[in-house]
Amino acid sequence: MFLTRTEYDRGVNTFSPEGRLFQVEYAIEAIKLGSTAIGLKTKEGVVLAVEKRITSPLLEPSSVEKIMEIDEHIGCAMSGLIADARTLVEHARVETQNHRFSYGEPMTVESTTQALCDLALRFGEGDEESMSRPFGVSLLIAGHDENGPSLYYTDPSGTFWQCNAKAIGSGSEGADSSLQEQYNKDLTLQEAETIALSILKQVMEEKVTPNNVDIAKVAPTYHLYSPSEVEAVINRL
Amino acid sequence: MFLTRTEYDRGVNTFSPEGRLFQVEYAIEAIKLGSTAIGLKTKEGVVLAVEKRITSPLLEPSSVEKIMEIDEHIGCAMSGLIADARTLVEHARVETQNHRFSYGEPMTVESTTQALCDLALRFGEGDEESMSRPFGVSLLIAGHDENGPSLYYTDPSGTFWQCNAKAIGSGSEGADSSLQEQYNKDLTLQEAETIALSILKQVMEEKVTPNNVDIAKVAPTYHLYSPSEVEAVINRL
Amino acid sequence: MFLTRTEYDRGVNTFSPEGRLFQVEYAIEAIKLGSTAIGLKTKEGVVLAVEKRITSPLLEPSSVEKIMEIDEHIGCAMSGLIADARTLVEHARVETQNHRFSYGEPMTVESTTQALCDLALRFGEGDEESMSRPFGVSLLIAGHDENGPSLYYTDPSGTFWQCNAKAIGSGSEGADSSLQEQYNKDLTLQEAETIALSILKQVMEEKVTPNNVDIAKVAPTYHLYSPSEVEAVINRL
Amino acid sequence: MFLTRTEYDRGVNTFSPEGRLFQVEYAIEAIKLGSTAIGLKTKEGVVLAVEKRITSPLLEPSSVEKIMEIDEHIGCAMSGLIADARTLVEHARVETQNHRFSYGEPMTVESTTQALCDLALRFGEGDEESMSRPFGVSLLIAGHDENGPSLYYTDPSGTFWQCNAKAIGSGSEGADSSLQEQYNKDLTLQEAETIALSILKQVMEEKVTPNNVDIAKVAPTYHLYSPSEVEAVINRL
Amino acid sequence: MFLTRTEYDRGVNTFSPEGRLFQVEYAIEAIKLGSTAIGLKTKEGVVLAVEKRITSPLLEPSSVEKIMEIDEHIGCAMSGLIADARTLVEHARVETQNHRFSYGEPMTVESTTQALCDLALRFGEGDEESMSRPFGVSLLIAGHDENGPSLYYTDPSGTFWQCNAKAIGSGSEGADSSLQEQYNKDLTLQEAETIALSILKQVMEEKVTPNNVDIAKVAPTYHLYSPSEVEAVINRL
Amino acid sequence: MFLTRTEYDRGVNTFSPEGRLFQVEYAIEAIKLGSTAIGLKTKEGVVLAVEKRITSPLLEPSSVEKIMEIDEHIGCAMSGLIADARTLVEHARVETQNHRFSYGEPMTVESTTQALCDLALRFGEGDEESMSRPFGVSLLIAGHDENGPSLYYTDPSGTFWQCNAKAIGSGSEGADSSLQEQYNKDLTLQEAETIALSILKQVMEEKVTPNNVDIAKVAPTYHLYSPSEVEAVINRL
Amino acid sequence: MFLTRTEYDRGVNTFSPEGRLFQVEYAIEAIKLGSTAIGLKTKEGVVLAVEKRITSPLLEPSSVEKIMEIDEHIGCAMSGLIADARTLVEHARVETQNHRFSYGEPMTVESTTQALCDLALRFGEGDEESMSRPFGVSLLIAGHDENGPSLYYTDPSGTFWQCNAKAIGSGSEGADSSLQEQYNKDLTLQEAETIALSILKQVMEEKVTPNNVDIAKVAPTYHLYSPSEVEAVINRL
Repeated sequence: MFLTRTEYDRGVNTFSPEGRLFQVEYAIEAIKLGSTAIGLKTKEGVVLAVEKRITSPLLEPSSVEKIMEIDEHIGCAMSGLIADARTLVEHARVETQNHRFSYGEPMTVESTTQALCDLALRFGEGDEESMSRPFGVSLLIAGHDENGPSLYYTDPSGTFWQCNAKAIGSGSEGADSSLQEQYNKDLTLQEAETIALSILKQVMEEKVTPNNVDIAKVAPTYHLYSPSEVEAVINRL
Repeated sequence: MFLTRTEYDRGVNTFSPEGRLFQVEYAIEAIKLGSTAIGLKTKEGVVLAVEKRITSPLLEPSSVEKIMEIDEHIGCAMSGLIADARTLVEHARVETQNHRFSYGEPMTVESTTQALCDLALRFGEGDEESMSRPFGVSLLIAGHDENGPSLYYTDPSGTFWQCNAKAIGSGSEGADSSLQEQYNKDLTLQEAETIALSILKQVMEEKVTPNNVDIAKVAPTYHLYSPSEVEAVINRL
Repeated sequence: MFLTRTEYDRGVNTFSPEGRLFQVEYAIEAIKLGSTAIGLKTKEGVVLAVEKRITSPLLEPSSVEKIMEIDEHIGCAMSGLIADARTLVEHARVETQNHRFSYGEPMTVESTTQALCDLALRFGEGDEESMSRPFGVSLLIAGHDENGPSLYYTDPSGTFWQCNAKAIGSGSEGADSSLQEQYNKDLTLQEAETIALSILKQVMEEKVTPNNVDIAKVAPTYHLYSPSEVEAVINRL
Repeated sequence: MFLTRTEYDRGVNTFSPEGRLFQVEYAIEAIKLGSTAIGLKTKEGVVLAVEKRITSPLLEPSSVEKIMEIDEHIGCAMSGLIADARTLVEHARVETQNHRFSYGEPMTVESTTQALCDLALRFGEGDEESMSRPFGVSLLIAGHDENGPSLYYTDPSGTFWQCNAKAIGSGSEGADSSLQEQYNKDLTLQEAETIALSILKQVMEEKVTPNNVDIAKVAPTYHLYSPSEVEAVINRL
Repeated sequence: MFLTRTEYDRGVNTFSPEGRLFQVEYAIEAIKLGSTAIGLKTKEGVVLAVEKRITSPLLEPSSVEKIMEIDEHIGCAMSGLIADARTLVEHARVETQNHRFSYGEPMTVESTTQALCDLALRFGEGDEESMSRPFGVSLLIAGHDENGPSLYYTDPSGTFWQCNAKAIGSGSEGADSSLQEQYNKDLTLQEAETIALSILKQVMEEKVTPNNVDIAKVAPTYHLYSPSEVEAVINRL
Repeated sequence: MFLTRTEYDRGVNTFSPEGRLFQVEYAIEAIKLGSTAIGLKTKEGVVLAVEKRITSPLLEPSSVEKIMEIDEHIGCAMSGLIADARTLVEHARVETQNHRFSYGEPMTVESTTQALCDLALRFGEGDEESMSRPFGVSLLIAGHDENGPSLYYTDPSGTFWQCNAKAIGSGSEGADSSLQEQYNKDLTLQEAETIALSILKQVMEEKVTPNNVDIAKVAPTYHLYSPSEVEAVINRL
Repeated sequence: MFLTRTEYDRGVNTFSPEGRLFQVEYAIEAIKLGSTAIGLKTKEGVVLAVEKRITSPLLEPSSVEKIMEIDEHIGCAMSGLIADARTLVEHARVETQNHRFSYGEPMTVESTTQALCDLALRFGEGDEESMSRPFGVSLLIAGHDENGPSLYYTDPSGTFWQCNAKAIGSGSEGADSSLQEQYNKDLTLQEAETIALSILKQVMEEKVTPNNVDIAKVAPTYHLYSPSEVEAVINRL
């Protein structure tokens, strides 16, 4: 008699009889509970947009950071456990700074993504930098380097993919469908902003305001939109 | 057949099938058993007020410290396990002292909060400074730096938020509702003192006296009210 | 279905679903099995009195030490596991000696108490000095420093409180009630001696003799009463 | 009464009563879920072909790398967990670079394969480089050294075999049968390309396009086919 | 529903819900299986007497050592696991030698006893010198220092008591009763020898001979009786 | 009630109530699943012969190495987990090389065998070189040193025996009986070759060819037979 | 309700409720499965005799070593796990060599035995030299030093006894009875040889031959009997 799947998930990093790693799958569930984030790559640069869940009117909206700068040419949007994401972003910031210092040039977006995923993969190994469990977060990493603009998507298993457009978080399923319908490679950055926000609007339960969404672009440097810049995009919807 | 949630909570830092971290959730329960603390930010500075549970008339009220100074520009109120809070505060004091020594200037309130949360996040990792379980405490961190006054709220997961006003502890639910009704950005510090104490009064089971509450402000430096100063606020209610 | 409390207590330092730390609670049970100890603070100094359980007439009463000197201005009474208490006291002695050596002045009573509690809090952490379980002991720490006389009470969680009077051990419940009735801040040291011993007499099953109780005072230095000095107090009852 | 097999698989690296290592067997299951990869050795060189599962039209096909260069004379195709494969490939790249640096000549294909398998074998040993579980990946390692072209196949147990042709992944059973029918030692490289792709076509559920397959050869150096080169092979089918 | 006591004893050093440490209690059971040993303090010195279980006539009686010298002024009798006792005695020998070397004077009997108990207390802590379980042995430590003769009794919890007379091992209950009846502080050393042996005789199942008991005294130096000296005491019975 | 055997086998290196080490016994089961290997000692030298399981016609037979050289005067045949055997052989190669370097002479066959078994014995000890489980392999070690030719047989417990002839693997039972009938000390090396191969033929399910068996001799140096040399032995059957 | 004994034996070194150490008891079971060994002490020296189980006629009898030299004045016979015994003997050899080197004189037999037992006692402690389980072996250590000839018997608990005569292994019960009947202190060495072998003969299932027993003496140096010397003793029976 085979045990049911739940008996296999307590060794943080062991296979089930079907060859699955349950702690990774459960971490992915943590992300399905997270706020929605969307990324779109255009020839002019990459746009990131996130839903901010402001659970109380007494919360300072600007302190709910779900888009962060990694280096001046790389930013990322996140969904899942914010404290975990901060650790990954801090790690990436150190890596990109070290790279600039050692080689006198910015780290490529792929190398930065790989460095993040190397850390994510090694959960449960007892290393100094790794965690005892998978990082419960997915990232959309937007960057611009010698190969032009690029957008990467990472998951808790330490795997990453390059995408033209991608949604993560609780609304990702519907948002991904909409992205497939609306995306094409010739979008302008402004069109990408509009698409990102209109899709976010569909999956959010409340009215979109400059308080409850954030938008950023890497084109070619990272820029987080001010409330009035967000307002302008909202007005275009 | 899925196991029920209780089977997942013994690995101190592993995900349940729904993507939850139970030890963190249980630590949050420890805080729901704690005494109530309230923080309000005004343009003049931040006010903290806490309920002190004096379980015996033979206890020295001044030795029940639930508001503590971190640095001369930062203080915090706590709810949950006091011994845990002391460890976090001691850690923050060392960090802010080191920062002053290294850079010749005070550490910002956000950096101090981030340093506290980095330690809180890494429970179960076997690091020298971290604990084998989550810290069973929430903090309201009040400070004043180059960005003016600020109020942060931390929880056992190592996450933090910036707030205008916030309540923690056993009476936090009712207190938070009252804060939302009564708070506005133009409150004077004196009005904030009165609101804090009047809300505390509602959630406390006994009469408010200078013995069973503490009040402090950071405006722009930390000051713990003397019994007569507390008395004065009580008289204004 | 929730597990019952007993399933949560084997991780030495993890939360139960209600936010409780069972190993700490069980250690507190160890103290409820211990002999009773009483402390009273007066303006002249602090009095400690303990019941000594002399299980055999062949035991040397003076070797059953339940009141110990930490430094010349600090002493403590204990209830619970004597071997654990010895470890804590030895730790405190080293701390106070180091403080005298480093700063040329005695360590304050609060700092000494904090140092003891720091060690107690970190059980299960694998540190060199800490234990793999909570220390199964409560202490009444009596001292006299620049702030005058003080009395602290510590429990296995690493928490401490300053008190005017406090009882610990198997008879603590009844003794605490009696203390609340009889204590006032203007007691003389001699009155405190009489109260401590008369309350101890109530909770002890056998006749009080110089052999089965110990009394000490810190006023302003530590002094353990000789059998004839104890006899004198008994005669005053 | 003997326990059923499932009771033995939680010690990551212990034998069952029948002398089996279940975590290795479960890791092999992970590979059976993976995409199909095929390798063929000819006198002119070795051909590798892999199915790329492009789960979304918004994914950048070139970022789904299932064939990677190890050194200029060695490449490998993989099936299973991509993040695990990246770790192994990175390890092999360091080994081959070190060998070139130390000895001034390329590492042989067998030594490179042995170095990969040494790392794979030691899972669960707590070494710095090893993992706490088996690597959930199989590799087809194609190379060319002083002994001419060679093709190795590795599995999660750390065992390797030299082959003339081999398929791995979800379609490997059918693909291996086809290879046995169609393989002979006198194939030209071009014939090998055609056979590899025609077999891949049989096991894939969708139409073969330059987007969803990758082809590479080592003849005698590693070369990943461009989309147009892949197109050319498709057209020959 | 509470678990029964047996569920709590596998963490080598954790509390049960009633505040008990079961591994220590079980170690005490090991001593109840051990041979009986008796100690008596007189003004002239301390007498130790032990039952030697000679399970086979082919055993060399003198090699069954249950009384050992620690230093020239300290000896001890043991009951329980002999190999554990040897480790403790060896530790004490090193401590007393180091003390003589460092301070040019013998270590006091209490300090020696404390050093033994410090080691015994720290079982399960992973220290280099400590064991993974309690030491399964009780000691009667007889010594003579500047405070005159003294007798200490230690148990597996690391606790010690000073006694006038004490019995340990399987016959300790009956032997302790007899000691209470027959002991007084004015016994001569010769009377103490006779009492010790006559009580040992009562609890032993076989006839007392110089082969199956050992006697030693510390008066003021350690001396193990020769068979003829033991014979002389037997003849006095 | 005693537990059944299966409850004792999960501590990798602990005794069952009957004094058995189950992980070692299970590792021995792994060998019973392995291919058959045979060794015979003659005055002229030692012969090793192994069955090679060629599971696919596309496998390169010469890459299935079940006889390996350790040093020029020592070789070994193996049955069980090939990756484990490679680790042991690699360890032995380093030992024999170090011995030559340190002492300027070859290591004896017994010392080499002892070095292999020391490593095998220490499984589960957490040493750098040892494994967390027994090595799942048996070896027939053939060598020639100052004492002439010798043949050793090792098992997963780290025990070794010197033999005149021995079979290991799935066909070992029948092969051992045949060896006892046919072996005598005056065999020539050629006769030993013929006996080894004829017995191997009996236990193999398929026809013996130069592709599916390997033969080697140490007489006095290690030599692995070429396909044509194997063919010659086959033709003598 | 108490658990049955089998629930306590998995912590390798913890007490059962009755104060027993089951892993040690199970290791003793391993010895009861072992071959029989006998030792006799005479005034002229010590004789050791062992049964060698030659399970196959193809085994080299001289390679089944159950009597080994430790130093030129010490030898030992063993029963139980041979690989464990080899580790203990190797440890003792290093100790005696170091002693000769440091002090210029041979180590005493008792010190050598104590050194062996110190290692045996510390199983499960994670020391570099100790094992994770008890050593599954008993030794009869025969030696000759300044105190004349001596014979020690060790068991897996790390305890040792000095004996005049002793049998270990599967036939030890009957052999010990015979030894008690036949032993006296005035035996000549030759008589001891005869008694040892005649008793061994009784407990062995097969005919005694120079192939299936070994005899050694320490008188005053270690000497292993040649087959013809064994033959001579057999002929005297």
